[in-house]
Amino acid sequence: MTKQNITAALLVIGDEILSGRTKDKNIGYTAEYLTNIGIDLKEVRVVPDEEGEIVAAVNALRKRYTYLFTTGGIGPTHDDITADCVAKALGVELYEDQRIIDLMLQRLKPEDMNEARRRMARIPVGAEHVTNTVSKVPGFRIENVIVMAGVPAIMQAMLDDVAPRLTTGARMMSQTIDAMGIPEGTYAASLGEIAKAHPGVIIGSYPQFGEGRFKNQIVVRSKDAGTLAAAAGAVAEMLKGLGGNSG
Amino acid sequence: MTKQNITAALLVIGDEILSGRTKDKNIGYTAEYLTNIGIDLKEVRVVPDEEGEIVAAVNALRKRYTYLFTTGGIGPTHDDITADCVAKALGVELYEDQRIIDLMLQRLKPEDMNEARRRMARIPVGAEHVTNTVSKVPGFRIENVIVMAGVPAIMQAMLDDVAPRLTTGARMMSQTIDAMGIPEGTYAASLGEIAKAHPGVIIGSYPQFGEGRFKNQIVVRSKDAGTLAAAAGAVAEMLKGLGGNSG
Repeated sequence: MTKQNITAALLVIGDEILSGRTKDKNIGYTAEYLTNIGIDLKEVRVVPDEEGEIVAAVNALRKRYTYLFTTGGIGPTHDDITADCVAKALGVELYEDQRIIDLMLQRLKPEDMNEARRRMARIPVGAEHVTNTVSKVPGFRIENVIVMAGVPAIMQAMLDDVAPRLTTGARMMSQTIDAMGIPEGTYAASLGEIAKAHPGVIIGSYPQFGEGRFKNQIVVRSKDAGTLAAAAGAVAEMLKGLGGNSG
Repeated sequence: MTKQNITAALLVIGDEILSGRTKDKNIGYTAEYLTNIGIDLKEVRVVPDEEGEIVAAVNALRKRYTYLFTTGGIGPTHDDITADCVAKALGVELYEDQRIIDLMLQRLKPEDMNEARRRMARIPVGAEHVTNTVSKVPGFRIENVIVMAGVPAIMQAMLDDVAPRLTTGARMMSQTIDAMGIPEGTYAASLGEIAKAHPGVIIGSYPQFGEGRFKNQIVVRSKDAGTLAAAAGAVAEMLKGLGGNSG
């Protein structure tokens, strides 16, 4: 393995997620997206629209991982305080970026430009834009912090824009093996031995419950194709030996 | 307001959420559930199946909030280490609880009881059971930490079991007001003034994007019915004044 590990955290900002009013769609999307491009998502946090909470989380996470992605809180209303909090966490000032005002005026009559909308043009000194192909107003990146919208369609477009400019590492590959009806408790000991015998491989067992019974899948993950194949083969052999119902 | 505020954090444990393989369904469910019973969910974290990460998160969150709920990692396989990590975080020992073995034997032939399955009967000294009506093996509660399964149907049953034994506070009530087609940037300043004029009320503006345009909703939240009604009334008046398309 020659490529280094690139890590990330995701910070979801918004009272509406914590109250249950809005069901988050960005965690699962971002997790899958980053995995596919070779960035390991290592932690997610959801915090309310409170300055102290956001600043503390930004600082804890940006220092610990290669990248920190945030979603939410970049609109024009009083509860949109992400830009202010990121600037505060990094100890930099915000400024009104005329390029963003110009972008907004592509969708807006000049007489409709007001103080609240101008807030969306404020980004930290030193930040670069993250293009928003959906509704123009960009997110931004400063140092290793990438600030995106909370609206899923816009967040996804922003991820598409910023991704090619990120350093990526070896991609985590995975293989899913159906447990063929064998209960977890029956194969758990053997699976643990396979996990021990294959360092560099992460093996998980995932039960799904439906129609009164469990249906299990075993997922084997590694950044090395050969290592992955060897471990997955061992799991398949093991299940066959235990007499899975289709093995 | 006579009842105190009761707070909670949710810790989602599992590589499969961070890799994007499994899309979490427990955050949104728990958020809505706790809000409805008068517990304020203040923070969510998702961490991998790694002892150091889980122990650190358990300790950070249990000390900060009234309750800490965890989901995931209580099965029989090697990647199920939640009970061990919670015991370690609290500085207590695990023991094999014969009552859990007995519950498991209701579904299991005695000859199928093995070392791996016995792991699921290990709970921290001093813990009480959280009943699992779906597949018997219980979760547990120790001090203010409530350990639940990751499988949504089982997690939901466990929440139903433990909820009546929790201290709950004043319930956060909310009213949702459709912004009647008015863009966020048009009402943002007025909404900010209403938020300032109504302390004890949390006001959020939530855009949804679809079919090429935004559809906004304003959510007003308070634990006091009168305060909520006054603020919601002010928002409705304000929108009417701005000439919403159905106002």
